[in-house]
Amino acid sequence: MMGIDGSGAPEYEPLAQSVRRLIDVTIRTEAGAGAVAAAKTHIDCAVEQLSESLMPGSFGVRHPFDGQPVTSGNVMIGARNPVAPPLVIHRDAGGAVWTEITLGAAYEGPPGHVHGGVCALVLDHVLGATAHEPGRPAYTGTLTLRYIRGTRLGLVRAGAWVERVEGVKTFAKGQITDGQGITVGAEGVFIKPRGDRD
Amino acid sequence: MMGIDGSGAPEYEPLAQSVRRLIDVTIRTEAGAGAVAAAKTHIDCAVEQLSESLMPGSFGVRHPFDGQPVTSGNVMIGARNPVAPPLVIHRDAGGAVWTEITLGAAYEGPPGHVHGGVCALVLDHVLGATAHEPGRPAYTGTLTLRYIRGTRLGLVRAGAWVERVEGVKTFAKGQITDGQGITVGAEGVFIKPRGDRD
Repeated sequence: MMGIDGSGAPEYEPLAQSVRRLIDVTIRTEAGAGAVAAAKTHIDCAVEQLSESLMPGSFGVRHPFDGQPVTSGNVMIGARNPVAPPLVIHRDAGGAVWTEITLGAAYEGPPGHVHGGVCALVLDHVLGATAHEPGRPAYTGTLTLRYIRGTRLGLVRAGAWVERVEGVKTFAKGQITDGQGITVGAEGVFIKPRGDRD
Repeated sequence: MMGIDGSGAPEYEPLAQSVRRLIDVTIRTEAGAGAVAAAKTHIDCAVEQLSESLMPGSFGVRHPFDGQPVTSGNVMIGARNPVAPPLVIHRDAGGAVWTEITLGAAYEGPPGHVHGGVCALVLDHVLGATAHEPGRPAYTGTLTLRYIRGTRLGLVRAGAWVERVEGVKTFAKGQITDGQGITVGAEGVFIKPRGDRD
């Protein structure tokens, strides 16, 4: 734990959680001019403090301690990326994956609904996650989305599984579901880089 | 303009711009524990100030003054949504649309590259924008993405156009390009609600 004096390791993930809350209230606030101006001053101070030392470019993949890759900056699963819900990917014994997330005001497209492109983003990620094997990343070749009905903002579940593998190609399927069933279905073809062929 | 005393209208869009900068430095900061703790305190203060009055749920679509719909909360084009780059959609005389945006650390998937799902999100939006007609919104039926090569973080251009219209169906195509050409291609079928049929 870090004391108020700033001893210990920097707590980057709680920082990102605070910024997630800030994103939500920035969209939804109806505060008056004075409160908004005061909040902006606080935010600009935080930006200056965090900018005292910045990594160039983007977070990328880091291998800090034990060689396990860390992707904390990833827009979907990155614990340090405030845009990421973040997705926590669960994997069953057969390799299928699923995640449950609450998508709030920050992900809105049609009023009260998740942006169809955010559904595509979530599905691209979970289909990719099931097509991956440890140490053998696969790249998206094609992704097809079928929009069945609108996905309301709130709790959604996304899942994906491998249908079949043909040479370098892995065919995966997935879906987003809410309390009433499937809202978006997806099919993807993922390609293993040539150097990784069987 | 608003004075420091908070007179005038609340400046929600500059607030969102500050939060966009904050998202970027939250991912990239290498500041020490003290600076991170101090920044988090500022952010939590801002959250509290903005929460003094919140609209319930999400931003939705508002018709504040002249009846023109305002979608400031939209995850792609919303000026009040810090997750939105935001996209500014340009429309040529033939109805084709294009946008140029800089996608930074917040949109990362593979190291140094835009997440493939973010490309899908951008393309879903621009294909939808070209399929729309004023007052006759179209909904995404299917969307197919073809990933040609990785899209590097930085400046990208996205464009879309209508290929043909058959009854309630509008067939649109689009692509993301960088300095070296097309990185992702897309085809979408958009459906006009039955009440809006020709």
